Formats: sequence, structure tokens, C-alpha cells
Amino acid sequence: MQDNQEKCKELAIRIYNLDEEVYKCVGSSLGRTFTGQKETTLRHLAALMYTKPDGHLLRSELALISNMARTIRDKSERRRLMIEYDSILKEIESLPDTFGQTDIVDKERISLNNLIARRQNEISENDHLIICISRTQGSGGNDIGFELADQLQINYYDAEIFDQVMKRLQADKNAVSDTGNFEGFDKYRKKKHTDLKTWFREFNRYHGLPKQDAVFFNMSDLICELAKSEDCVIMGRCADAILKNNHIPHISLFISAPFQVRVQHVMDIRNMNLKQAVRFLKQMDKQHKKYYEFYTGEKWGKPENYDLCINSANYGLKDTIELIRRMLDQKVR
Amino acid sequence: MQDNQEKCKELAIRIYNLDEEVYKCVGSSLGRTFTGQKETTLRHLAALMYTKPDGHLLRSELALISNMARTIRDKSERRRLMIEYDSILKEIESLPDTFGQTDIVDKERISLNNLIARRQNEISENDHLIICISRTQGSGGNDIGFELADQLQINYYDAEIFDQVMKRLQADKNAVSDTGNFEGFDKYRKKKHTDLKTWFREFNRYHGLPKQDAVFFNMSDLICELAKSEDCVIMGRCADAILKNNHIPHISLFISAPFQVRVQHVMDIRNMNLKQAVRFLKQMDKQHKKYYEFYTGEKWGKPENYDLCINSANYGLKDTIELIRRMLDQKVR
Repeated sequence: MQDNQEKCKELAIRIYNLDEEVYKCVGSSLGRTFTGQKETTLRHLAALMYTKPDGHLLRSELALISNMARTIRDKSERRRLMIEYDSILKEIESLPDTFGQTDIVDKERISLNNLIARRQNEISENDHLIICISRTQGSGGNDIGFELADQLQINYYDAEIFDQVMKRLQADKNAVSDTGNFEGFDKYRKKKHTDLKTWFREFNRYHGLPKQDAVFFNMSDLICELAKSEDCVIMGRCADAILKNNHIPHISLFISAPFQVRVQHVMDIRNMNLKQAVRFLKQMDKQHKKYYEFYTGEKWGKPENYDLCINSANYGLKDTIELIRRMLDQKVR
Repeated sequence: MQDNQEKCKELAIRIYNLDEEVYKCVGSSLGRTFTGQKETTLRHLAALMYTKPDGHLLRSELALISNMARTIRDKSERRRLMIEYDSILKEIESLPDTFGQTDIVDKERISLNNLIARRQNEISENDHLIICISRTQGSGGNDIGFELADQLQINYYDAEIFDQVMKRLQADKNAVSDTGNFEGFDKYRKKKHTDLKTWFREFNRYHGLPKQDAVFFNMSDLICELAKSEDCVIMGRCADAILKNNHIPHISLFISAPFQVRVQHVMDIRNMNLKQAVRFLKQMDKQHKKYYEFYTGEKWGKPENYDLCINSANYGLKDTIELIRRMLDQKVR
């Protein structure tokens, strides 16, 4: 403890001197961060470090000095003072409980974050690259998801595809009941799980439920099974929340764009007039919201419910895809 | 027009045949996308292409076929059919008004998007890398912004720094009035604008306004001046909206994290108990929201108002910074 206080005092002196030197080089009254009495300033600085009521203030003081140091015209002087600044910053960052040291992490989620896990080589052989994309109607989200899947050469699933797959599974199940042949289902689960038959028997088991709920739960099962067996892009269907609840690693993206831009986009691609497009989008947003909030209990489109939210209108389709690919950092894969 | 219809018919046949071939290779009733009568299916497919009521359905059909084609075990067969699929996709994408072709862009914003402009080498000598970071309290946003600025070796500005700079400018202005010496101000505007004196004279001119509004407008001026003269990270202060309204290129980020994670983070760094932390955060969120919405008329924390929203708790401080840097794609710089 004593050592720490001593260190803080010493650092306070170095910070004070740095400010003074920067001031001399810059040569203006604006260049001085500490204008008060030296002794008081040193006590204040040391206190900021060892009582740390809020790292914030100390950081602002330091940033102010370095911002000014960067304007020094003499290159060698600037270099010398920036080196001293960097060295001070390192010392401060090595103090216990200093700013920037206490991390912010959602431990459960971070362990499920495909991106982080991949970076840290903490993925098991059974983990796949699952990209869940939620989007607002008219934001180009479907185009982006489809093209992304195509570029990554992985499967693409949207509502229509799920509907078709569900219908076929149902048809196949009936056929299977007759013949006992599971072969046809295999392509959706390349790796055979021991519980394949069990899962399949359970499929469509939600008898007491209203039809739409039964569909949702069957779809949830299907999404989990897919995510366990292959890399893919999944559009909507609350896939992010479903996978989170089932502890299956994935990346969750939300793609949106300002309302007026979406209106224009919908008018362009659906041959609607302004009034029709506005009505259509309002209705779709309402439905999306209702569906997501009903089945997940989470708020639709709230940034903290996703890994990343992208405003597609600020990039355009092509650059949005590139942005996502850069985020995936495929070098690491 | 006639040509286009012919092309659509021809593509319909190729799609139908591809589905049939994939079906043969996969060998299951699930493998067949088109189970109806051939003539009807071809008419339906061609119609999807040339009446294009919604590209969506056609895309889903194609994705379903390619998803299945990717499961073909025989490598050379798979390769052959995927080449045919890619070729069909390219043909469809070259049709007029097909899916994925109508871009979604906010033209005004895209011209101001630092990132896009940089990529396309459309930046002028006078454009700078300006990163505006909005964040919720407790999301680690300040730590991220400070560290990012340090890594990029550019200036960092937050509320405290602005306050100090404003005070000094005020002091300097008074001094200047006496001595006529503008030198001290120069470091905040490395390039001398011809209107320097005018701007400076205008500084703090908002007389009739309540004090907080005068402060806001002076700060807005300062932010615009900074953004015109140097690369920097600007925390909060509605900088994104201010720069947008003034047509100055910038990147806008919103950093947040789920409420319960922020509560834990605030408890850790501010030595608060649960109750204090919850009350503190609710109050700060309310203030942030009120301030932003009052001065910008935009909704605070709505994904489409930013280029990108990041959930810092899903990455942690270090990886969030890395994510942003990867997004900046510094290779291009």
C-alpha cells in the first residue's frame, strides 16, 4: 500500500513535469493543463491515482497533455515527450484497479461468441460458424445474408426455406414411419448424433400447443440441429435468441437502415408508391417486433441484444458485406 | 423484352435440371425442390424472374438447391453442380431489376462516411479520420475510445477536455482582446482557415440563449473546427449529429452493453453497491437520452442512427478495440 502511494506520488511528478515541458514546446497559455499551485496539483494528481474515485478525470488530464504534445512542431522534441507520455501511461495502467483495467464482459455470452472463440482458438471441432441475421424490412438484409453465404460458401436459411424443410421433414417422417428409413434426413445433420432417432421421434411433438407455437418450437429444434452440424447464415426466426438459450455459439447481427431510406428501397424493388411502401413497412416492423418479443421476451432491434448492428444505408450492399467479412477476420479461420 | 422472356425461360429450364441432378446425387425425396409438374414449375420459375413481384422467393428456391448441392458426397459431382449453380446465379443477377441489384443507400450519408470515402480514395486532403463514439454509461465506452485514440496516435476529446478547452479559449479570447495575439489558438487548427479571425470573433456569440444552450452551440462550433483540422476520437457531445448537420465526414459508433452487465461493471469500478449502481445507471441513461434527443431530435441508441453499434460485453475491451480497428481497415490508409 505504502509502495503504491509512493509510486503514485512519483508518477504525479512525472505528469506535472511532462505538462510543463509540453507547455514550453507549444509556447502558449493554452498548453498548460495544470495552472494551479504545484504542491496542490501534485496532491490532486496522486489522489486521482490512489483513491481512484473515477479513472475518468485522470484520463482526461492525460489526454489533454498528449493532445497538445502531438502538436509540437519540433519532431525530436515531440518524439521525446510522447515517449515519456507512453511510459507514464503504461505505469498508470499497471496500477491496481486503474482505468481500462476492469474489463466489461458478459461471461456467458462471450463464451458463446463465435468470433472471440475463433480468435482465441477456443473452438471445438463441433463448433460451426453460425451467423444469425436479424433485419428490418427494406434494409437489404436478405440480399446481404444471401450474398454473404454465397461468398463464404456456406448454407443460407430463411423463412421460406425453413417452411419447405419443415414440410419435407414432416413428409419424410410419415414416410419413415412406414419404412424405417432415416437416410433422407441425414443431409441436414452431417455428423450423426446418437440422439438422432430420439430427436426425430420428438419432432412435431408439441401437441397441446396452438399451431403457430408448435411451428415455432419445431423450427427452434431445427435451427439448433443445423447450428450443431454445419456452418450457415440464418435469417430471422429469432435464431439468435434460440441459439443463446440453447448455449450454441453464434454471431448475431442486426441490419437496419433509416425509415425513409427503407421506404425508397421498398418502392424501388416492389413497385409500390410512397403510401403503399410506408404502410407496408410500418406493418412489417410491427409484425417483426411482435414476433420477436413474443417468443424471446427481448426487445427487437436494441443494440445490446446483438453483437453488432449495422446501418446498411451508410455502406450500401457491397460494402456492408465487406464490413461483415472483415469483422469475421477470415485470416484466422 | 422478348429476349428477356426467352432468357428467363431458358434459365428456368437450367434451374429445373439442376434441381433434378442434385436430387439424383443426394438420393432422397428431401433433395427435390420442385415436386410439382414440370411444365407448371417452369412457368412458375420463369414468372418469378420476369415479373419479379419479389426476388425473395426465387432466391429461397435457389438457396435450397445449393444448400443441398453442398451436401453431395462425390467431390467431382459436387463441384460440377456448384459451377452450374454459380453460372445460373450470375445470369439471374445480370437480369434487369433482379434481387440484390437495387442498392440501399443513404446518398447524403454515404458521401460523408469516412470509411467508404477512404476505401474509394474519395477523400480530399482536408478530410480527417473522425471517430464519434456515443456510449451508455458502464459499457466501457470511454476506455475503448481512449485506448483506440492512443493506438491510432490521434487526439482524444471527451466532455472534461471540451470543458477545459472552452475555458481556455475563453481566457485566451480575453487575453487576445488585449494583445491581439492569436498564436495560442493555432494548435487547435493546424491549417489556418481564412475565416479564423471571424470564427474566433463569433465564438461565444450566442447571447440571447440560456447558458447551457450557449455552451452547446459553442461546443458544436469547436467540434466542427476540430473535425476540419485533425484526426481524432470524440466521445459523446452529440458529435455525430453535429458533424452530420454540418456535412463533415466522420464515422459514428454506438457502444453499449446489457443493463445487468453495466451494473456489474459500475459496481466494480466505482465501488458502488447494487442498489446505488442501478440508480446511477438509470439516471445517467435518462440524462444521456434527454440531452441527445433535445439537441439532435434523433433517438439515442437507435441502430439506424449510427454506422455501427457494438455490444462491448460480447467482446470485452480489448477485442472491441480490435474489432473497430479491423473495421477501419487500416491497410487502406
